[in-house]
Amino acid sequence: MKAEIISIGTELLLGHVVNTNSAFLSRELAALGVEVYHHVTVGDNPERLVDAIKQAEQRVDLIVLSGGLGPTEDDITKKTLANHLGVDLILHEETENKIITYHKNSDFNMPENNQLQALILADSRPLTNDTGLAVGMMLTQNNRHYALLPGPPDELEPMVENYLKEEIVKHILDEQVLVSRVMRFFGLTEAQLAEKIQDIVVNQSNPTVAVYANDGEITVRITAKAQNEEEGNEAIDDIEKDIMEILSDYFFGYGDKRLADVIKDMLIERSLTITAAESLTGGAFLSELTSDLSAGSILEGGLVTYSADKKNKVLKVTKETINKFGVVSPECAIEMAEKSRAMFDADIGVGLTGVAGPSSLEDQIPGTVYIGIAYKDKQSFSKHFHFGYKRNRNRRLAVQNALELVRRVLKDMPIENTIFYGEDKK
Amino acid sequence: MKAEIISIGTELLLGHVVNTNSAFLSRELAALGVEVYHHVTVGDNPERLVDAIKQAEQRVDLIVLSGGLGPTEDDITKKTLANHLGVDLILHEETENKIITYHKNSDFNMPENNQLQALILADSRPLTNDTGLAVGMMLTQNNRHYALLPGPPDELEPMVENYLKEEIVKHILDEQVLVSRVMRFFGLTEAQLAEKIQDIVVNQSNPTVAVYANDGEITVRITAKAQNEEEGNEAIDDIEKDIMEILSDYFFGYGDKRLADVIKDMLIERSLTITAAESLTGGAFLSELTSDLSAGSILEGGLVTYSADKKNKVLKVTKETINKFGVVSPECAIEMAEKSRAMFDADIGVGLTGVAGPSSLEDQIPGTVYIGIAYKDKQSFSKHFHFGYKRNRNRRLAVQNALELVRRVLKDMPIENTIFYGEDKK
Repeated sequence: MKAEIISIGTELLLGHVVNTNSAFLSRELAALGVEVYHHVTVGDNPERLVDAIKQAEQRVDLIVLSGGLGPTEDDITKKTLANHLGVDLILHEETENKIITYHKNSDFNMPENNQLQALILADSRPLTNDTGLAVGMMLTQNNRHYALLPGPPDELEPMVENYLKEEIVKHILDEQVLVSRVMRFFGLTEAQLAEKIQDIVVNQSNPTVAVYANDGEITVRITAKAQNEEEGNEAIDDIEKDIMEILSDYFFGYGDKRLADVIKDMLIERSLTITAAESLTGGAFLSELTSDLSAGSILEGGLVTYSADKKNKVLKVTKETINKFGVVSPECAIEMAEKSRAMFDADIGVGLTGVAGPSSLEDQIPGTVYIGIAYKDKQSFSKHFHFGYKRNRNRRLAVQNALELVRRVLKDMPIENTIFYGEDKK
Repeated sequence: MKAEIISIGTELLLGHVVNTNSAFLSRELAALGVEVYHHVTVGDNPERLVDAIKQAEQRVDLIVLSGGLGPTEDDITKKTLANHLGVDLILHEETENKIITYHKNSDFNMPENNQLQALILADSRPLTNDTGLAVGMMLTQNNRHYALLPGPPDELEPMVENYLKEEIVKHILDEQVLVSRVMRFFGLTEAQLAEKIQDIVVNQSNPTVAVYANDGEITVRITAKAQNEEEGNEAIDDIEKDIMEILSDYFFGYGDKRLADVIKDMLIERSLTITAAESLTGGAFLSELTSDLSAGSILEGGLVTYSADKKNKVLKVTKETINKFGVVSPECAIEMAEKSRAMFDADIGVGLTGVAGPSSLEDQIPGTVYIGIAYKDKQSFSKHFHFGYKRNRNRRLAVQNALELVRRVLKDMPIENTIFYGEDKK
């Protein structure tokens, strides 16, 4: 099964909008085993759109069109395809009602052409738009399939996830269900992870296994086409087992949850609070922890102590520690963790100190980072890291590795290469 | 003059990489007055690439190819185009020397096929790669122009900025120079700004005027093609004057500098230091200020006080203020600014408090934010904001508006609607 993705919108050709839909659709189609050989973008121009459709008809079985379903003059996709295929545009009542209700509940008057968004091609199967007004659709003619999707990614993505994929699986691929599972990993690069499970990835056509990296975290998505949910899950279980045999030490969770989310969940579940004293990361760790609703229940506050003077005067790291070991040291990281923990009455204190770069500090090279952890009555410790990147990537990695350290401490997992333990707690 | 952009890379068709090059190239070409009607993406497949090139030759004068200039088997662009046009691939010595020197200075042995990156099409004009090894090039045959660019955006973008544009202006458009100027604005939406200068944008073909939004800040780029630098700058000066008559109150700087950069520069120039006490923004303001090298000279540290208890116990906001006015109040914002300023011995203290959402706090609706400013011996004040977005967008807007307040204070600019002034300083 081959597909081609045609994006429609003059804003794309002017470069006002980056086309993320093509990449998203390609990933989703690849997970279904559908091959994509061309992405094409045209403007809001019926002639050029018809040319692109005709060309795609020579090459593929499934043509996915995104954009041009809105209510304005520029939105030409439905009209152009209807003319090309010789079918009528008819009113989709469910969508019409939705549009009317939406405008009743808002302060805006409904412009008449808003109803254009409720038109569908005759004999097409509508695809619900959960996050917008323009209805999508899927049409089959002469064994060729046409999917029409809205342009805005926040409308297109849920429509694909919730409706288009099922449509493709059932009506084109003749399978009953599509089951997928996302596993998340931290602590190795995308290339390292992909190499470790290369045999599993390459040998799979159903389920498919896809690896993506996003901001230091790695996602592995396993997708099975099957006759029923159970069969799909069984196939996925087998693959997951193989993957976990190799990667269990790096696995931190399933689904959408990022590393920070997993830690926040653990803290909430255990009614624990956290704080931090940040030097090189300058507030980024605390900002990450306060980025969602849970903030109030897991954190009362924290400190940024950038200068040595304020590490001492505000945070009360001793002058002795600073003078004897330096601010970029395991001793200082541990003391920052312990002092912030005391200052904010938290269960867990995290100290982050190091050299973000590009200059050196205290003869330590850029990328050198010490993260200290103080957790209740356990012995405090610090772990040394070296990140060889640019300033803000080093800062980001420090934040993520601090989160990972917290996760390992809470899970009682081994932490390798902790280079320094603080003094025994009394 | 019409152009078509062909992107080459199987990673694009698999959706592993989002194609940002096409949008970037489109913007740059639009600024030159070059029209783009098609973006096409193909994989690392010579046949499909030749088909795409042939098709583009039917439609346009300038074909821009990005990707496939690297050293591996998959990198087919140069070989494919050379075959298609019937020209030889020859060694570009300057690039060869660069590759050899690069490998001498690194720990890696040079793989033999690395030299593939130094091959260029005979009679092409090389385009220097300032950030990578693969050389780009521009070739003219039968009045049709072919530009070959590397795929990684951090190599493609500087090559376009520094070399391709000049090449197009001089050799294709027969002008001598291309002059452009970027103006930056904050405090209104892209749509609002575009509407205010609509007449200027629409009526211009040389210079062109383009408006972009990025993370709350708006960029206006004015680009002139001219016979010399002076003529170009004069044309731009005229447009800038017209724009400033309408938008001067929102203008904060030129070029690449973001709002935060402009404030950092001002602080450094005046040898001033800054600090903050953050509630709803949870460290994001401090993190922004510490994101680059200047951090050490403008900031010694700061505080995140999320809970009311720690606002009092750590930051020393009085219980009276908290009980009488609440933590989401102008009084609390001002006290946070003043107390953090004292605690960190800074010239400027910023207090950020409010309701990020989605829940309410102290009966204040989500999006309610008070930002307090304490600056040396000037009277402290607070400004009220209401942002009607989701949690993290509200947090982000609070950070940016705090930066803008600092800028206005330092520039002695009027600040409208400050709803509260603190008590007169003694």
